[in-house]
Amino acid sequence: MSNYSVILSNVGSCADRFLPTGYDEPVAIPELFRRVSQIPQVKGVELIGSWHVTEHNVQEIKKYLDEYQLQLVSIIPDHFGQAKWKNGSFSSKDKSIRAEAIQHTKEMVDAAVELGGNLLSLWPGQDGYDYLFQADYIQERDWFAEGIQESCRYRSDVKISLEYKIKEPRTHSYLSTAANTLLIIQEVAEANCGVTIDFGHSLNAYETPAETVALLKKYGDKLFHVHMNDNYRHWDDDMIVGSVHLIETLEFFYWLKRTGYQGWKSIDQYPYREDSLAAVREGVNAMESFDKLIERIPDHEIEALIKHGKSPEITSYLRKLLLNV
Amino acid sequence: MSNYSVILSNVGSCADRFLPTGYDEPVAIPELFRRVSQIPQVKGVELIGSWHVTEHNVQEIKKYLDEYQLQLVSIIPDHFGQAKWKNGSFSSKDKSIRAEAIQHTKEMVDAAVELGGNLLSLWPGQDGYDYLFQADYIQERDWFAEGIQESCRYRSDVKISLEYKIKEPRTHSYLSTAANTLLIIQEVAEANCGVTIDFGHSLNAYETPAETVALLKKYGDKLFHVHMNDNYRHWDDDMIVGSVHLIETLEFFYWLKRTGYQGWKSIDQYPYREDSLAAVREGVNAMESFDKLIERIPDHEIEALIKHGKSPEITSYLRKLLLNV
Amino acid sequence: MSNYSVILSNVGSCADRFLPTGYDEPVAIPELFRRVSQIPQVKGVELIGSWHVTEHNVQEIKKYLDEYQLQLVSIIPDHFGQAKWKNGSFSSKDKSIRAEAIQHTKEMVDAAVELGGNLLSLWPGQDGYDYLFQADYIQERDWFAEGIQESCRYRSDVKISLEYKIKEPRTHSYLSTAANTLLIIQEVAEANCGVTIDFGHSLNAYETPAETVALLKKYGDKLFHVHMNDNYRHWDDDMIVGSVHLIETLEFFYWLKRTGYQGWKSIDQYPYREDSLAAVREGVNAMESFDKLIERIPDHEIEALIKHGKSPEITSYLRKLLLNV
Amino acid sequence: MSNYSVILSNVGSCADRFLPTGYDEPVAIPELFRRVSQIPQVKGVELIGSWHVTEHNVQEIKKYLDEYQLQLVSIIPDHFGQAKWKNGSFSSKDKSIRAEAIQHTKEMVDAAVELGGNLLSLWPGQDGYDYLFQADYIQERDWFAEGIQESCRYRSDVKISLEYKIKEPRTHSYLSTAANTLLIIQEVAEANCGVTIDFGHSLNAYETPAETVALLKKYGDKLFHVHMNDNYRHWDDDMIVGSVHLIETLEFFYWLKRTGYQGWKSIDQYPYREDSLAAVREGVNAMESFDKLIERIPDHEIEALIKHGKSPEITSYLRKLLLNV
Repeated sequence: MSNYSVILSNVGSCADRFLPTGYDEPVAIPELFRRVSQIPQVKGVELIGSWHVTEHNVQEIKKYLDEYQLQLVSIIPDHFGQAKWKNGSFSSKDKSIRAEAIQHTKEMVDAAVELGGNLLSLWPGQDGYDYLFQADYIQERDWFAEGIQESCRYRSDVKISLEYKIKEPRTHSYLSTAANTLLIIQEVAEANCGVTIDFGHSLNAYETPAETVALLKKYGDKLFHVHMNDNYRHWDDDMIVGSVHLIETLEFFYWLKRTGYQGWKSIDQYPYREDSLAAVREGVNAMESFDKLIERIPDHEIEALIKHGKSPEITSYLRKLLLNV
Repeated sequence: MSNYSVILSNVGSCADRFLPTGYDEPVAIPELFRRVSQIPQVKGVELIGSWHVTEHNVQEIKKYLDEYQLQLVSIIPDHFGQAKWKNGSFSSKDKSIRAEAIQHTKEMVDAAVELGGNLLSLWPGQDGYDYLFQADYIQERDWFAEGIQESCRYRSDVKISLEYKIKEPRTHSYLSTAANTLLIIQEVAEANCGVTIDFGHSLNAYETPAETVALLKKYGDKLFHVHMNDNYRHWDDDMIVGSVHLIETLEFFYWLKRTGYQGWKSIDQYPYREDSLAAVREGVNAMESFDKLIERIPDHEIEALIKHGKSPEITSYLRKLLLNV
Repeated sequence: MSNYSVILSNVGSCADRFLPTGYDEPVAIPELFRRVSQIPQVKGVELIGSWHVTEHNVQEIKKYLDEYQLQLVSIIPDHFGQAKWKNGSFSSKDKSIRAEAIQHTKEMVDAAVELGGNLLSLWPGQDGYDYLFQADYIQERDWFAEGIQESCRYRSDVKISLEYKIKEPRTHSYLSTAANTLLIIQEVAEANCGVTIDFGHSLNAYETPAETVALLKKYGDKLFHVHMNDNYRHWDDDMIVGSVHLIETLEFFYWLKRTGYQGWKSIDQYPYREDSLAAVREGVNAMESFDKLIERIPDHEIEALIKHGKSPEITSYLRKLLLNV
Repeated sequence: MSNYSVILSNVGSCADRFLPTGYDEPVAIPELFRRVSQIPQVKGVELIGSWHVTEHNVQEIKKYLDEYQLQLVSIIPDHFGQAKWKNGSFSSKDKSIRAEAIQHTKEMVDAAVELGGNLLSLWPGQDGYDYLFQADYIQERDWFAEGIQESCRYRSDVKISLEYKIKEPRTHSYLSTAANTLLIIQEVAEANCGVTIDFGHSLNAYETPAETVALLKKYGDKLFHVHMNDNYRHWDDDMIVGSVHLIETLEFFYWLKRTGYQGWKSIDQYPYREDSLAAVREGVNAMESFDKLIERIPDHEIEALIKHGKSPEITSYLRKLLLNV
């Protein structure tokens, strides 16, 4: 079956620009681990650099992973949550910041190895621009790719999976869409450089997430990691898996299976107002249900729908499957 | 149970700006009626003024309605499909065009009565603007309301249901959202003036269609008519009911029931590439399935979800209902 | 000329969900006032309840207003920045929270009066919902209107201006659009209840801001207050005035003048990465430039463009005005 | 200076799905040429295959080009305006249709050469999908690239410039964004395969058009052609150049100059309600004004803005340039 994981902070408290102190009481790291351990299907966690793991607390984190028998699925380096990155990290106009971005990545690679992991899921959230006439689009993208390349070359046995998102916190991100990410990956030309699809980011970019799985398969089998959530298409609402776009999620899970995806399926939800453990638990239950449903449907039935491409046949099939009256 | 109908042209051929001659062979009116009659759950049709019914062919249309035992659900006056309306109908800067818009509406009211109907579903598609600094927003809205008011006063026993849509064919429509329509209805102050929710138009306006049902109930019980389809939220794609936003559709049907909606549920799909009869048939099957599913769910269960407002509880409930693994 | 003001926090530091500690060092209230005082065209400030002004520090705030000769333009009650409001304030399912929302508003009304002001700009940011099947859309909207009504009745000489926004922090806000707000205002039926247009919120709701000025004029002369900024239409980016939608901003300022708007034009920008004082200063300079440009253009010239409604004529005019080559 | 052209049909009449017979009287080809000749800055035309030029009327077209001293800028093959393409052309599940798509392209290559041209601007508007579970995303993209490759190899001295667009007429196009197009171009691996940026398509894909110019420069100098218009970001409204996004257009023209773009700037507007010649004339006047303004601004001034990346500095500069009060 699938490997389910969760980003550790998901079971904690969230903040936003109007309530920066958070919608709930802050939750300490030991408690975050304890909460994750209460979700039976979850076998691994993703940790955020500087938020959860630093070059200095690796041993402490190791203890929690062992105690709760959780694998380190990935480290998400912190290229977005420190004020020094505000004008970019890998693509910063400031040479010393660019060097720090690479250095931090290498530190997180080392930390991952120490913790038994082999994956970084890298989201360069502050790399991009906000205003017109603000960016040197070529130079900054060159710097970005150079930084990623150097990071990838540090240890070829650790995968660096680039997570794209079209905007937020910048009004425009450089690592915007799957196709854009593939261009960068081709430029970087390292086998350990791949892509993280965040289902919600994909929807927000007017991609069809299932198509993105296919695109990444076609262009080099570059899907390394998956983050799951849902939204209303216009924004990265980070809602519970399957709460809005049920059919897109089902198609996504089908194409993950069809393309032989063997990686983790990880929750990336922001449960602002929810009991965060309950929300993540439901997200995991949803992922498991989608996987089971896809297992249950004979492959040849979906292949026939795709082969014919006739929408009345498709909608009839889905209606009977889901509405089931 | 519910009353299902379809806009007659839905079972014909569609065109767009790139293929204005149509994606399929044109279908004559007798054949359109024959096709509709093949959908067992459909008891009525909506006819488009000038496209299907004019002041001159009422008797001929009557024959088809009788032959196929179909009720006239509504006439949709043609305020959008003739070049004379291109700069607006009720809100045109040209006084004679405004008068024609009203006159055409009255003719369609008469035709509806003759055909045994009592509803116009009025979509003023050309009323709005495209460019900035192009419109006198106050004057044109005043004219619009005056024209609607005069039309409503013509026969108080015929309902005039205003169908809103935020854009297309104009870049901005005057009758844009449900709330905007309610303002106009209050201004018109006629009991026979109400609202048509087109599910897709509602999604495209970033409304939650179920909430719009509630809004129209709250502000005067003004929901007169419903058009069903689906889309990807960014545009009026006019796809088969339930093909994308399954949960929003389910919630919409729930609130239609909850608010005691007794009107018709009508298909408004543009099956560009589909076998149009098959696509409409599937849309009707979908509407029926949503109705049945809502009937099957004990009301108190949904009321509890709403009362608590806890998303893990809601998503868990929907997951078990729909994914059912 | 126009009255320019700024929301006090605009010249401070901002945070977001990824960097909740802020993009810059926090700035204390005395320094915020000092900064605002350095923008010569600014004659007033808006203060946020609980962030800047509470029932307990009114005298202290009074001192700053006097020291810097700034008028209190409005108090923005804090119905959004405290965890207790997370599931709604006026529309909360919790009766005691609803009562607190009203109580806080009354306290801010009293504070405003004490500080020589007569306007609250009320943004109920947490009132709405996130998930489908989560909200009782009728009941919660009833509660919302009741709470606003009671707040308005507290002191008829203090205006309560409702600021709409379609989403954020909720995925869907109740006070969503201008038209929606007018429905509520009509329901509340108090003369001191009006509307705040936030230019960016208007764009994000696919409104044309100038049209919204006209709509509010038409339906009861209800425009009480204006917040200025810019964005890319898809989100409330809160960027510097005029930095993207120059023509929409120009048209907005024209219609403000045309409808005789006498209120304040206030900056509501979130300068995440900018020198916040410089960014606000530029926003004010921009507002002043738009006002001057509108003053300079003979009214009859724009009236002619609108009267004819011919886009080649309009674009030609704007091109010569703005590109000026 | 720049080379300005126009798509021939732009000066004619347009249709849409509600008014498929057209908003104005149809205009015959000779008259279309005559109209274009009245725009002094226009030196070339783009012709649409099957609409304007076929394998059979090349001599007739040659006469018009000579008579009006217009260059053939490009042929836009007709892969979108015939019912046979409705389920795709290069990516059709039907092998014979795929062959026809290639065949038609070769015919248009031949026609272009005969008419003295060396560019096809290829917009595969029907290639994509509408429904979920409808497409084999890998197989169809493979077919698409194969078809484009064979077309490019037919004559290496004729450039084939792929015009991307995220949707319409399909709900999702395969040739969706600039990055996606670059992936295909790299796969095709032919020097004569490049990209057409349609300014409005770029905006609609949440690209910053100037950034796309830079991206295409960076990844192989692949910008072959430019279509100009404007919209409200949510749809391909095909409005007059510079009528909404003035600053994005200015930045776009700056980056065209900065990257040494030597190709044509062509009008692609749909003047539904406008005097089409007047609208296109205004579009050309706008392009010329943007070019002149960019020429007038000292390069080092914009380079400084970009180098510093400080938004108050940028907005101040643009304000003085454009508002000029």
